[in-house]
Order: sequence, then structure tokens, then C-alpha cells
Amino acid sequence: MGKTRLEAFSDGVLAIIITIMVLEMKVPHDATLSALMPIVPVFLSYVLSFLYVGIYWNNHHHMLHACTRVTGPVLWANLHLLFWLSLFPFATGWMGENHFAAIPSALYGVVLLAAAVAYWLLQQAIIAAQGKDSILRHAIGSDWKGKVSPLLYLVAILLTFVAAWLAQLVYLAVALLWLAPDRRIERVIKHDA
Amino acid sequence: MGKTRLEAFSDGVLAIIITIMVLEMKVPHDATLSALMPIVPVFLSYVLSFLYVGIYWNNHHHMLHACTRVTGPVLWANLHLLFWLSLFPFATGWMGENHFAAIPSALYGVVLLAAAVAYWLLQQAIIAAQGKDSILRHAIGSDWKGKVSPLLYLVAILLTFVAAWLAQLVYLAVALLWLAPDRRIERVIKHDA
Amino acid sequence: MGKTRLEAFSDGVLAIIITIMVLEMKVPHDATLSALMPIVPVFLSYVLSFLYVGIYWNNHHHMLHACTRVTGPVLWANLHLLFWLSLFPFATGWMGENHFAAIPSALYGVVLLAAAVAYWLLQQAIIAAQGKDSILRHAIGSDWKGKVSPLLYLVAILLTFVAAWLAQLVYLAVALLWLAPDRRIERVIKHDA
Amino acid sequence: MGKTRLEAFSDGVLAIIITIMVLEMKVPHDATLSALMPIVPVFLSYVLSFLYVGIYWNNHHHMLHACTRVTGPVLWANLHLLFWLSLFPFATGWMGENHFAAIPSALYGVVLLAAAVAYWLLQQAIIAAQGKDSILRHAIGSDWKGKVSPLLYLVAILLTFVAAWLAQLVYLAVALLWLAPDRRIERVIKHDA
Repeated sequence: MGKTRLEAFSDGVLAIIITIMVLEMKVPHDATLSALMPIVPVFLSYVLSFLYVGIYWNNHHHMLHACTRVTGPVLWANLHLLFWLSLFPFATGWMGENHFAAIPSALYGVVLLAAAVAYWLLQQAIIAAQGKDSILRHAIGSDWKGKVSPLLYLVAILLTFVAAWLAQLVYLAVALLWLAPDRRIERVIKHDA
Repeated sequence: MGKTRLEAFSDGVLAIIITIMVLEMKVPHDATLSALMPIVPVFLSYVLSFLYVGIYWNNHHHMLHACTRVTGPVLWANLHLLFWLSLFPFATGWMGENHFAAIPSALYGVVLLAAAVAYWLLQQAIIAAQGKDSILRHAIGSDWKGKVSPLLYLVAILLTFVAAWLAQLVYLAVALLWLAPDRRIERVIKHDA
Repeated sequence: MGKTRLEAFSDGVLAIIITIMVLEMKVPHDATLSALMPIVPVFLSYVLSFLYVGIYWNNHHHMLHACTRVTGPVLWANLHLLFWLSLFPFATGWMGENHFAAIPSALYGVVLLAAAVAYWLLQQAIIAAQGKDSILRHAIGSDWKGKVSPLLYLVAILLTFVAAWLAQLVYLAVALLWLAPDRRIERVIKHDA
Repeated sequence: MGKTRLEAFSDGVLAIIITIMVLEMKVPHDATLSALMPIVPVFLSYVLSFLYVGIYWNNHHHMLHACTRVTGPVLWANLHLLFWLSLFPFATGWMGENHFAAIPSALYGVVLLAAAVAYWLLQQAIIAAQGKDSILRHAIGSDWKGKVSPLLYLVAILLTFVAAWLAQLVYLAVALLWLAPDRRIERVIKHDA
């Protein structure tokens, strides 16, 4: 009960985040191909962030599917996750406009890291609300992706001090890791149904 | 009947308000940490307002849950509340960009005060629509938080003439006061169900 | 069937229109009351347009309630209405920033007029889809408000050549005329149910 | 299952795209008719793109109606489509502000082409999820519109090197071709129901 509205609000915020990011690609004044060039890195950072928001929407979708009770902590953990995701447009824009420079790339990693932690907290809140026989705990299993991602973000943040493009590589690798929807949850739900 | 669409529209507006506020954090041109410094107060004011919109969404969610009939006055009281909440991005941006100066902090308090009054009016409209045995009136009880908050906002507005940071302290205190979801309504609904 | 998504999409667009209009109120750089002064007319035009979008949402809500079949023409008449409503932020901003000057006030009237015509077309499309015993045709009765409003907008547009504030008066008067939700539809639905 | 949320998220993104495009029409500073003139091409490009997004929403609506199972590939094909549609505001703004110059018109065609391919991929993903007796495959029949549109976009992109207004003509023609909702799907669903 109340889950529908939680999903609707999250969908709204995620839909706006994903679309607002595109506003960082400022329309150039000249009608030449070369006027388009400075926008290429902004475009690439947009693609990366679109991928991430898509992944979050996708997994959020699956996780809430396994959520049977919306409690106060679940509501607030969800808002907490949305808060960090709402910083994506800023972090994406700063990184893109500065052609993936070190410090903006590090900040981008910090936002990714915070969002990953917030996602984990939401997961814990749902599991806690479900009690002992939590279907979600059962579903996520060892949750190795959820555990390894924050570590990889940390590594990427440190790598920006060496070479920023190494960090980008890690960000992309983690995104590809998550690209597959969380089949574990689907499987368990089907099995229990 | 019609409640679903009222919630959907409110969710949409709230989702956009919360996400549009982040646009006040303008992406800096330089890729240095010091270029990020002027954005810190804008970020802090964003955090405060995110908290407030989150609280409003949360309590709006609970209040509409106890709303059994959507009448004309309820529709308009809801739009009236959304109007004041839609001024959050402006008030937040002005306060943040001016590093919590006195007058912008006072205006922020005025918007908070107006939103609190609008919330109370919506509550009254729902209670009036429910008639004598209003489940919502029963649920909110003495409604001390609802009564004390406008007073505290007034105090904070006056405090900006003394020291603006005192007002911020009050704004934060009221937010923390409301952070807990309105369990009263949940309790009564469960009890009646 | 399909009505839910039509409503959801319309709600989304209306929610964004209403919230995007507020972005025309640009955050001033100085933290003084006098820096706020140039924004007052923008704020007033925002209030007027918020009222109008609120009225459209409200009546759209009631009208779709009486809509039993979503046909191709209904879908496109709805998009056509949303198109004109999407011009509200532009017309509102231009009028507000130019302190209700004649030509922007006239353009505002043109957009209001076009939206009113589009609303009427949507109404006709729904009635046509319902066939002979259209519940909506029954519900709107003589539809005097719907007939008189476009005329009043026309008068207001002409009045801008005399004095722009006269046009504003008419815009406000029409808004107040519509403020009451369309009880006719509610009544007929109840009666038929 | 899950289709509701897929539709809700898509509706949200489409609603925001359609409304954000209007922001490219920057409010002019002067209150004269001549100040409005430079905005006319931006307005015309907005009308064209509004038409296209409306068509996509409309057909997306019909296609998902015939979608019985949301699989991982369907989710991602949908996000992929939304990605290309999210580039409409940028492409529209660039084309409008440069008065339909050749290169921006070509880029607009590239975005249209990519969106058309993405739409086709989504269609294939839904058909694959439905298996042998796919209701959607049955419904779209020869899908000549879906096959001819990408070719026409390609022709239009090439035409921009001759004369940009020829490309605009093709874009408009394809839009008019699609304006009619996909009655084939409606027919088949009715027939099967």
C-alpha cells in the first residue's frame, strides 16, 4: 500500500533527471560542424549518465517489485537515493564541459559512490521491513555487484589523480556490469509465486 | 474518485520542483576545487529545500491516504499548496546564491510560512469534505506540529533581522521535527480498518 | 481503455508547464528588496497563468471523467490542447518581463484564445466519440462559459490597443469565471450512475 | 507485469521532452512584434518536433498496448528509444535558431533516423518476447510506414546538401504520414478480444 505512489514519484524524478541532463548540451550559435565539436564530450558524459540513470531505474523497478511493505524508513531511504541521483545533471555537466578533467571526474565518482551507498541503504530498509523471511534478501543472494561497485568507484576516484581517462574506463565498466537487469529477483519471485 | 489523478498531478509537480531546484547549482566553468566553492551555499540551501519538499511529499501522501472524497475545495486547496511549493526553487536559489543573507533568508521563511498555511487549509478542506466523523480530524489529533511550525517560521523571519544564521537553525529544526512521517494517520487508519 | 495513459501524459505535461513557468522568475543577483522589485510583474503574470493552468487541469479532469472512449481524434485533440498550453510559459514570461506591455499582453490573449478553441475541439471530439446519447453533451448543457470565454479573449486582445491593463482585467475576470469546477458534469454523472 | 511502470516512465520522459523543447524559444527583451520575428523559425521547428513527439507517444501507446510481456530487452530497447527522443530538444533548438540551415537540418534528420531505428528495435524486442504467435507481428503486418520512414529520413539528410528546405519538406511529409494512429494494432486486438 502506498507503493504505487512511491514508484510514481520516483519515476517522475528519474524521468526529469534523465531529461534535464540533456539541457547541459547547450545549443551552439553557429550552424557548422566545428561548432558542434565542443559539445562532443558533453554528449559522451550524457550517454554515460543516461546509462546509469537507466540502470538505476531498471534495478529500482525490480527491487520495488520485491518490496511488499512501504515503511517510513523505506520512504526516506528512497528519497535519499533520489537526492544523490538528482546531482547527476550537475556532475555530468561539469565533467563534460571540462572534457573529463581530473577533479570533475573525481566528483562524478563521488556522486556515483554516494548513489550506490544510498541504493544499498534502500535495499536494507526494504529487507528490514520484510522481516526474517525477506523475499528481497533471498533474491539478491550474495549481492556481489552491489558490494563490488562502491569499491570500484573508490578505485576510480583515486585513479583520477593518475589519469582521468582510467576513471572513465572504470565508470563505463561498472555500468556494463549492471546493464543486465537483476534476474535474481525475477527468478525468486517466479519461484515463490 | 479522482484521488488518483490528484495524487499523480501533485507527484508530478513535486517531482519537478525537487529536480528543478538543482538547476540553481550552475555548472562552474573551471575544473578546480576552488571553482566549486561558491556553489557550496547553493548546495546547502538545496539540501534544506530537498528535505522540505520530501517532507511535504511524505505528509501529503499520508494525508491524501486519509482523504476519502475529493471535492472542489480540496482540488483548489491542493493547487494552492502546490503554488507555494513551486516558489521553493526561486527562494532556495536566491538564498543560496547570496550565501544565506538576511533578506533572501526572510523571503525563504515567508514561502515556508505560506506553504505551511496552505497545507493547513488543505487539511481543513479534506476534513470539511469528510463531515462530522472525519477520519483525518481524528487522525491528526491536536496537530501540535502543524500549529507550532508557522509560529516558528514567523520567529525565524524576525530572527533574520538579528542574524540570518539563527533563522537557518530554526528552518532546519522544523524540518527535523517533521522528518518522521505522520504515524498518527497510519495508526488511525489501521485501527479503523 | 487507454484513458489512464491519456490522463497520465496530460498530467505530466500540465505539471511541467506549471512548474517551468516559475523559471521565468530569474533569481536576482543582489540580496536586497529593491532587487526583487523587477520580478514583481513576472510574479503577477505567473500567478495569473498558474490560475489558468490550474483551471485547465481541473476542467480537463472533469471532462475526461465523462469521456468513455478514447479515439484517434480525441488523442490528437488532446495533444493539440497541450500544444497551446505549452506556450503559456513563453507568453507569460514575455508579458511579465515587459511589465504587461500592449503587444505581449495581446500575444498572451492569442494563446488563451487558441487554448480555449482547442479545449472546445477536444470537447467536440469526445462528444462525437460518444455518439448520439453523449453523456458529455448532456453534461455541458448550453456551455455558456465555453462560448463566452473566446469572445472575451477577443475583446481583451482588442483592448490592448487602448490600454493593456484593461486586457489584464478581462483575463482575470475570465479566470475567476472558470474557477468553480464544472459541477454540471459531476451532477450528470451522479444522476446517471 | 511491470508494463504500467514502463508506460509511466516513458510518459514522464516524453512529457518532459515535449515541454523542455519550448524552452528553446527564449523570451525576447523588447515588447515589439519585430522582437518576436527571430523566434518564428524556432517556433516552427518546435511545431514540427511537437508533432513528432506526439506521433511517437501515440504509436508507443498503441504498441505497448499490444505488448504482453516486459522482458529485459524490451526495457532496454525502450530506454534506447527514449535516449534518441531526448536529443529532440537539442536538435530542434539548433535547427530553429539557425533558421533551418543545412548542417543543423541534417543533424535533425540523423536524430529522426536514429529514433526510427530505435522504435523498430523496440518493436522487434516486443515481438521476440511474444514468441511465435506474436500479436504485435500480426498487428503491424507489412509495416510499410516503419520501413519507408528511415529511407525517407536518409533521403532528407542527403537533400540538405542540395537545399535544406527540401529536407524540411520530407520531415513534414513523414510526420503527416504517421499522423494517423496505428489502426492496424487496434483492429487486431479487437479481433482477438
